[in-house]
Amino acid sequence: MELLLLSNSTLPGEAYFAWPKPHVQPFLTGKRRIAFVPFAAVDEQQDAYVERMSDLFGEWNCETIGLHRESDPVKTLSTCDAVAIGGGNSFLLIRSLYRSGLMRALQPLVKEGMPYLGWSAGSNVACPTIMTTNDMPIVEAPSLKALNLIPFQINPHFTEATIAGHGGESRSQRIAEYLAMHPHMPVVGLREGSLLHVHKDQMELIGKDMTIFRRGSEPEVITAGTKLRIDLRPLAPAH
Amino acid sequence: MELLLLSNSTLPGEAYFAWPKPHVQPFLTGKRRIAFVPFAAVDEQQDAYVERMSDLFGEWNCETIGLHRESDPVKTLSTCDAVAIGGGNSFLLIRSLYRSGLMRALQPLVKEGMPYLGWSAGSNVACPTIMTTNDMPIVEAPSLKALNLIPFQINPHFTEATIAGHGGESRSQRIAEYLAMHPHMPVVGLREGSLLHVHKDQMELIGKDMTIFRRGSEPEVITAGTKLRIDLRPLAPAH
Repeated sequence: MELLLLSNSTLPGEAYFAWPKPHVQPFLTGKRRIAFVPFAAVDEQQDAYVERMSDLFGEWNCETIGLHRESDPVKTLSTCDAVAIGGGNSFLLIRSLYRSGLMRALQPLVKEGMPYLGWSAGSNVACPTIMTTNDMPIVEAPSLKALNLIPFQINPHFTEATIAGHGGESRSQRIAEYLAMHPHMPVVGLREGSLLHVHKDQMELIGKDMTIFRRGSEPEVITAGTKLRIDLRPLAPAH
Repeated sequence: MELLLLSNSTLPGEAYFAWPKPHVQPFLTGKRRIAFVPFAAVDEQQDAYVERMSDLFGEWNCETIGLHRESDPVKTLSTCDAVAIGGGNSFLLIRSLYRSGLMRALQPLVKEGMPYLGWSAGSNVACPTIMTTNDMPIVEAPSLKALNLIPFQINPHFTEATIAGHGGESRSQRIAEYLAMHPHMPVVGLREGSLLHVHKDQMELIGKDMTIFRRGSEPEVITAGTKLRIDLRPLAPAH
């Protein structure tokens, strides 16, 4: 498996997709046809979303195929060399993944080696479920179960910051509630400007420190640049 | 119908339930038995939640019945004089409302006059759906459809504030996404420290200004103290 799972596309004040570019370029270069899934955007914005990504991926001589206009998106996906799933709303995204048949089709293709790029909602759906999304549940999805490509949950856009004088739950409180209901599933808080690069059964954290939350343990901070196993255990020391 | 729909229970830095007390006291006084629904809390915290509300409502000589321990919560509800649904996680809450049969039982009782007090998640479930919650979807609910006591959606804990330097969607962006998918349903942004007091087909906004979001219109700010119809139209002018 080759996954590039980004917390977010763009940092405030920067050009669109500026921070991920140096990491996405080597990941996509040489892939001729990129299947792009714009389903996390509301319908009326999907064409523009595909166009935006087409401009970007075009810089690396990749052709971008927006799967939302395809009469048989599963068949079109199978003709592509990589898949990219954009951010937006995770509930919109997962609903369309189920409706289009892509949910069922994607998992084996990616497990067998199709490179998978996701950001924000596109990273949420790489997890066992979308239960650690920050998004508003603006539509009913048939299930919160997702692609299950990795054995942990990602909380993208992770931050400990809260709005001053505001009483809503902090991100860590929300994750603690998730853990109370799912005590055996770890949650990774992936900060904006960070990504996990999964290569087979290992992965590398790039960008900023991340925090692993586990039920009954103190949160564990992992330093940027760390390589670890896909199950979040440390790599075995070299002998 | 008699509804008291609070954005939140407690303002930062204040004692628990301090701001709503002067409004909740006249609403509950004289009601002997209050059915309290603690399902928005994770299981392990539900007993403590009932105890906390029992202490509070006890000050007004109300008896608090925690429905989570009842073998037949629907039957117990029918012996009570009012219902209170506490805040926490809206997905946990709605899942248990469906499982317990309370979802089906509550609507006719409240429509026929049982006073309904809700805060945060407890206000979300008074709406047609919980699709404008801020909560993390930590469990699967059989549906996002809710009690449909009012003909609009509430976004509790509403704020325009965002976290400085953080790229996640603002609350208004999230609501705009909801409206794009549901163009005929208005959304009310109810600020912390605010409530809607519904009495039959009218209601009064108490606390702070609120914002009504409608697809294709500029947001409309309603001043605290305004009375309006339950369908959000202005009251007919007096002749």
